[in-house]
Order: sequence, then structure tokens, then C-alpha cells
Amino acid sequence: MKFCSNCGATVALRIPPGDTLPRHVCPSCGSIHYQNPKIVVGAIPEWEDRILLCRRAIEPRHGFWTLPAGFMENAETTAEGAARETLEEACARIEVGELFTLINVPHISQVHIVHRARLLDLEFAPGEESLEVALFAEEDIPWQDIAFRTIAMTLRHYFEDRRHGNFRFHTGSIALPPFSDSP
Amino acid sequence: MKFCSNCGATVALRIPPGDTLPRHVCPSCGSIHYQNPKIVVGAIPEWEDRILLCRRAIEPRHGFWTLPAGFMENAETTAEGAARETLEEACARIEVGELFTLINVPHISQVHIVHRARLLDLEFAPGEESLEVALFAEEDIPWQDIAFRTIAMTLRHYFEDRRHGNFRFHTGSIALPPFSDSP
Repeated sequence: MKFCSNCGATVALRIPPGDTLPRHVCPSCGSIHYQNPKIVVGAIPEWEDRILLCRRAIEPRHGFWTLPAGFMENAETTAEGAARETLEEACARIEVGELFTLINVPHISQVHIVHRARLLDLEFAPGEESLEVALFAEEDIPWQDIAFRTIAMTLRHYFEDRRHGNFRFHTGSIALPPFSDSP
Repeated sequence: MKFCSNCGATVALRIPPGDTLPRHVCPSCGSIHYQNPKIVVGAIPEWEDRILLCRRAIEPRHGFWTLPAGFMENAETTAEGAARETLEEACARIEVGELFTLINVPHISQVHIVHRARLLDLEFAPGEESLEVALFAEEDIPWQDIAFRTIAMTLRHYFEDRRHGNFRFHTGSIALPPFSDSP
């Protein structure tokens, strides 16, 4: 950030009174421009014993597989965001279920939140950001070609819980990146 | 947002190619300025059968009681944010435990996340944003003077789970505001 989005003046990086961290502060109009973590919301769309994955048509991780997921928008809930992303990326309609994983990715200031979901029909197709969309049984999951560690972690929890017949909520954090965690 | 924070030009509100929502777009440098929900992180600091509340010294809801909580910062986890806010608002050190509630507040584009926590000692005091800080048993909780509905909902879940001897993770959403939900 170089310019004040409120008045257009050049901003300075300084600690505002009463604060503890440097912020982009406007010396002209006094605006303080905070920067905060972003939420990525996604879904695990289930159809019988299979789940829906999308192969990415965009960077980062072009060509790799992921769950439908993306940046949460203003004025929506995590469940609404998961349904929207699934419609956008897989042209698929889901009934969103319980929250399943919340994984912190602090080195990129993101929190990844994934819901379980029920795929409502088989009318899915690649959206603009997907190369292909397909249902996978556990034994066919392309583990070496999963785009992001948070998604791989979510899928491991999912199949482990399913084997135990007991889905529960999982939290975790991911530290240094062996590959990109951006959604 | 009126000006591009990257180049200082006047931004326009339009739907970028391949997108579905209007964004602040810079016609000069091409930057797209996304606006996304913010996360509020907090803690329920426990000491024996009591929990720590703070009385707010700032708006919104000046003078009302709340759990230590505030906007999550870049590069931290939800647990780190909960510990930081507890130190800032109550000068109290905690060991952060499991994630307890995640509550959507879509009309103000926030997600409120609260962890259970163990208060490590009784050396607490009001931080700059608090008028007073105190431990409350369940029968002494000032229910009529709780600052935010997400905090009241979290406290109700907490005491109900404690009565059943079984803490579990809760999610929910809050809709139209009878009073402010801003942290």
C-alpha cells in the first residue's frame, strides 16, 4: 500500500497511538489502513462413497487437484461461501453440512475453513477456474497432485473419520511452505 | 475506497473479467482491490469455576462486558490472536485451548472465533481498551450488560456444555442486529 484509499495522499508506515503494530497511516486525512488475514472457504461435496475434486485452471498450482474453495466474500457466511465456490468452480449444487476443518496458514495470513457437503445431483462441470471436475473414491485420490497442504490435511481427516464412522471437527496450523498454500 | 492504494488514481466500481461481483478496480494500473470478511478472535480464560470478562473502555458498546477479543492480525494463528488480545485487554497470560465457537456475522462481514483458555495466574488488570477486568462465576455473569450477541451466545454454550461435563465445538450465525456486533 502506497497511497491512501480515502484521499489519495502518500501513506506512511507507523504505529498509531494506543496500537502496538505499524500500520499504513495517512498523514493527510488520518485514515488508518489495517490489513488482516483472509478466510478461504471450501466444501467436501459427497456423492455416495465419492467426493468431488476440481483440477485448477489457474495459478497457483495450475493443473493440480483441490476441493472447491476460494476467498470468502463480504456479507456471506462460511456455508454460503462454500456453496458459492462449489457452484463457481464445479457448476455443482450442494447442501452444505457441518464445519469440518479450520486450518491456520499464518505465513500467508490465511485461515482455511472447509465444510462437509452433500452433492445434490450429478450435473457438474468445470467452471472458469477449473480444467476438469470429477468424483473420486478414496483409493483413487491423486495424493501426489493435491494443490494445497490444507486440502490434503482436510482429505486425510475426512477419510480417517469416515473409516471410524465418526466425523468430528478438526483444527490445525501449517507452517513453512514446501509448496504454495494460496488457494 | 476512492483511490488506488497502489498508484493513487481514482478507482471505479466494476465487475472484473471472469468475476461475478463489483470490485474497486484501478483504470490506471489495473489493480483490483478486494474487500473480504474480517476475523475476530477471542478467549474464555478460565480460573477454577470462574471466567475472565473485560468491561469495554471504547466504542462500540462502551461500558459493557465482553470476553477478551479483537481483530486477528496478519501472520498469526487464531490461538496466537486470542492470547495476544487477552494480554492487551486484560494484561492476562493464558494457555489457549481448543477452538470453542465460530459464529458468522454476515451483515457486518465478520467471523467471530473463540477459544477456551486457562488463565495462568491472577496477575490481570485493565488494558488500554478496558475499564475493568474481573472473574465471574456463572451466577454472577452480567447477562444484560454483555456487549455483543456472539459473546453472549458463546457464554451460553460454555455454561451449558460445562453443566453437561462435555465441551464441544459450536457454530452459528447471527442475522439482523438488535444491537451492534462489531467487536
